[in-house]
Amino acid sequence: MVKKNIKNKVLEPLFSKPSGIKKQEAKENDNKGLTVKKNEDFSEWYTQIVQKCELADIRYNVKGFLVFQPWSVLSMEKMYCYLENVLQRKGHKPYWFPTVIPESNLKKEEGHIEGFTPEVFWITEAGNNKFEERLALRPTSETAFYQMFGIWIRSYKDLPFKTYQRANVFRYETKATRPFLRSREFHWIEAHCAHASEENAMKQVYEDMETTKEVLHDVFGLPFIFFERPAWDKFPGAERTFAADVLNPDGKVVQQPSTHLLKQAFSKAFNVKFADKDGKDKYVWLTCYGPAVSRIFASVAIVHGDDKGLRFPWAIAPLQVAIVPIVDDAKLMKKAEALKKEIEKFASVEIDKSEKSAGEKFNYWEMKGVPIRIDLGLKDLEAKKVTVFRRDLGKKDLVADGSLMNHLKKIADECGDNLTKQADKIFDNRIKDVKNIDEIKKAIEDGKIARCGFCSVGMDGAKCAEAVEKDVGASVRGTKLEKEKASGNCAVCGEKANYVVYVARQY
Amino acid sequence: MVKKNIKNKVLEPLFSKPSGIKKQEAKENDNKGLTVKKNEDFSEWYTQIVQKCELADIRYNVKGFLVFQPWSVLSMEKMYCYLENVLQRKGHKPYWFPTVIPESNLKKEEGHIEGFTPEVFWITEAGNNKFEERLALRPTSETAFYQMFGIWIRSYKDLPFKTYQRANVFRYETKATRPFLRSREFHWIEAHCAHASEENAMKQVYEDMETTKEVLHDVFGLPFIFFERPAWDKFPGAERTFAADVLNPDGKVVQQPSTHLLKQAFSKAFNVKFADKDGKDKYVWLTCYGPAVSRIFASVAIVHGDDKGLRFPWAIAPLQVAIVPIVDDAKLMKKAEALKKEIEKFASVEIDKSEKSAGEKFNYWEMKGVPIRIDLGLKDLEAKKVTVFRRDLGKKDLVADGSLMNHLKKIADECGDNLTKQADKIFDNRIKDVKNIDEIKKAIEDGKIARCGFCSVGMDGAKCAEAVEKDVGASVRGTKLEKEKASGNCAVCGEKANYVVYVARQY
Repeated sequence: MVKKNIKNKVLEPLFSKPSGIKKQEAKENDNKGLTVKKNEDFSEWYTQIVQKCELADIRYNVKGFLVFQPWSVLSMEKMYCYLENVLQRKGHKPYWFPTVIPESNLKKEEGHIEGFTPEVFWITEAGNNKFEERLALRPTSETAFYQMFGIWIRSYKDLPFKTYQRANVFRYETKATRPFLRSREFHWIEAHCAHASEENAMKQVYEDMETTKEVLHDVFGLPFIFFERPAWDKFPGAERTFAADVLNPDGKVVQQPSTHLLKQAFSKAFNVKFADKDGKDKYVWLTCYGPAVSRIFASVAIVHGDDKGLRFPWAIAPLQVAIVPIVDDAKLMKKAEALKKEIEKFASVEIDKSEKSAGEKFNYWEMKGVPIRIDLGLKDLEAKKVTVFRRDLGKKDLVADGSLMNHLKKIADECGDNLTKQADKIFDNRIKDVKNIDEIKKAIEDGKIARCGFCSVGMDGAKCAEAVEKDVGASVRGTKLEKEKASGNCAVCGEKANYVVYVARQY
Repeated sequence: MVKKNIKNKVLEPLFSKPSGIKKQEAKENDNKGLTVKKNEDFSEWYTQIVQKCELADIRYNVKGFLVFQPWSVLSMEKMYCYLENVLQRKGHKPYWFPTVIPESNLKKEEGHIEGFTPEVFWITEAGNNKFEERLALRPTSETAFYQMFGIWIRSYKDLPFKTYQRANVFRYETKATRPFLRSREFHWIEAHCAHASEENAMKQVYEDMETTKEVLHDVFGLPFIFFERPAWDKFPGAERTFAADVLNPDGKVVQQPSTHLLKQAFSKAFNVKFADKDGKDKYVWLTCYGPAVSRIFASVAIVHGDDKGLRFPWAIAPLQVAIVPIVDDAKLMKKAEALKKEIEKFASVEIDKSEKSAGEKFNYWEMKGVPIRIDLGLKDLEAKKVTVFRRDLGKKDLVADGSLMNHLKKIADECGDNLTKQADKIFDNRIKDVKNIDEIKKAIEDGKIARCGFCSVGMDGAKCAEAVEKDVGASVRGTKLEKEKASGNCAVCGEKANYVVYVARQY
């Protein structure tokens, strides 16, 4: 899902060749930390984070397609784990659907195909055979799942029918791509559910939002607001769309999981009916929910990262503890190995045996965002102590050997919450009440989210939203779930305000 | 990998429509167990296992593409977990590479593209744009990984460079597809490694074989023999190919993980060089290893399954314990919930609250292969006992409440090993020494693997292998790793035997 209107910007060339020069560049960057501050040049900071922390390599020779590297993959695998565990606990069953969808399936729901057509990759041949019908690389899988729902679902006893799949999806993005934030192949979970009534379907939508909070906020530490999107910004084929906007430190928002109450058009198109208790055949009510793990990873990097580099919550750190012997010494190495054995029982841990200097090693692990670094020096060894650096607070402690494990476990317990608390502060005083377009502009330029009266979130409000887009370069994110009472006038057209909406710039 | 020669058989139509009739059929099959015996009609037995245990649905409307259902996915996710843990422990790092590969990459290694061309799905357009160069849906990812290896690897210090990815791959199979065994999209791990010398690369190949034993045999309980494939049956682009043949009860083999020492042609094609200790630039030695999880699942189903249905090893069971209250009674349900809470601490567990009869429930969980079923009856409730059915031995025990948890843990510990031991027996007396083609034929018809002298496993032996294929419908699997001394004559052409080879029918 996470589907936006397409504007016909200039297409990026699809192919690019990796060159020898880049190999050289990468070499020169070795062992150097970030060279810009996050709040001074956010864009460059992000580029460096992706490259220097080895999160993804953009030099693959198909434009917009990334190679995800171990440091991000290890973290994203953990993210999948948390999300899937919660979904399974709430009764979703896992499926693996085919990656390919026949064009005729995609066409069955009018709004859906209209929204996605410009972005679909098409398979037209295999071996020496040209196909009679094109196959889409799934941009999203409603039209694959619901066809099978039509076969599987028979009675009210089968409902709710709650599914999900872990999958990669493909969209021929015409906007500039950005690693993790917008690429032509990304990794997500899509949950698809069928319900007996609209009311139950809406309950599912609320459950999805609760899941988002449980995992993205409470475990990954991401602060967000759920908005109901205006009519012009809904998922193609949806009746109502709800999406979590995560706030970046620079005031721009990133859309994270969205959940959708779909029109019954889908269940009609794919003939997904059930025999109800009253004996009558009825169409099911469908919902879909799409947390995009690779995009969520971007928010984790952006929200928690600082001028030194990444900072991972304990739960999703690719590595939790790094042990750095300060000098190359057999006794130190022996101690390092002994500590590793102890720590392995409750955390992932590695000894840095590289040939870098101690200072370079310190900076490296700080940049990589490992929650705990243990520095082993000869003097400390004699005193039966070690130096423990915790990344969440940027603090060093000298800890006696005897209390080390408890000390580490305490940090493990606390550091996720600390990052969450620090992140939640991003929202402090961020919402600015405004009355007209100049005030919206001013608020946005100050890195705030503007809140204002608005004429309509139906299609008749689209012209006012376009004006905001044009004049301010920001978009109307929608209304809060707990409806706020509007008073006064629309900040754009001056007509009566019927809604309170939020305006922000987005990535 | 797991790539075979293509014969131009009749192509299956690519599209098929799901029909209303099938919905009806599925309905009628409900609550019925298997209707054939495994050793009487293996093919129908397997079809029923896939359908009735709800492992995969073949009614998706693109031919050869399956919908994997929760009962198989839950097990395959655990398989991934075991495989990935072992790979990571042995120093492999996880990556996610793009699904698409430019045609020019595929063409860089001659033997590779020749082998794969007939099976590649091609993306030729996106949105309204026709591409100048076609993109392949990866049939395997050598030509994606090694291009990046060329960028990443610089010095001997970077070696060994050990990677892997969990991915789905696509092959336009022209043979009849079979769920899990051969389909046009399947799920695997591909591990790619670069080494400083051929010797180190061969060590990697042996490590891969050891990994296969550690996981496929010791955890999943699959008995197999590793063969070095003859020249005509190597992976396209490989110098040497080693593959595990799992034996089915009917005597046919299924090729499982293969590991390959690649020709240096790949490192030359993608310019993967390293500066060695002596200061000279040298090409790396590459290896690749491909355990196909969806295919391994087929072997688990086939090897352990019996006339009643599936039997899962504890470690990879989609569900480990099913609790069946025999009658609908509040006290029984209360006990079921209490047991569930206890069992949840060490196993996955579910209470069967369906409206089926007790007998239907018993058969259902037996068919589904759950390692432990707990039957709760009113009489037992009073006696403070429960009936525990263990699927590995097909045995029921009446167990006192007080010793129940220990009893369950004991079964959990034992049942995987029991299945492995039972499976290992498949190989007892299976290998038959033979001297000529008639004896090969007789051995194969008796469900055995034929062992015989053979003139050559180089390309000059291919004509004898073709004769075996034609006359017996079986293939030469290759030589054992620990070389066996050949004597006498080639069983086919009668020339001097230089090798001892094994001949079997395969799926």
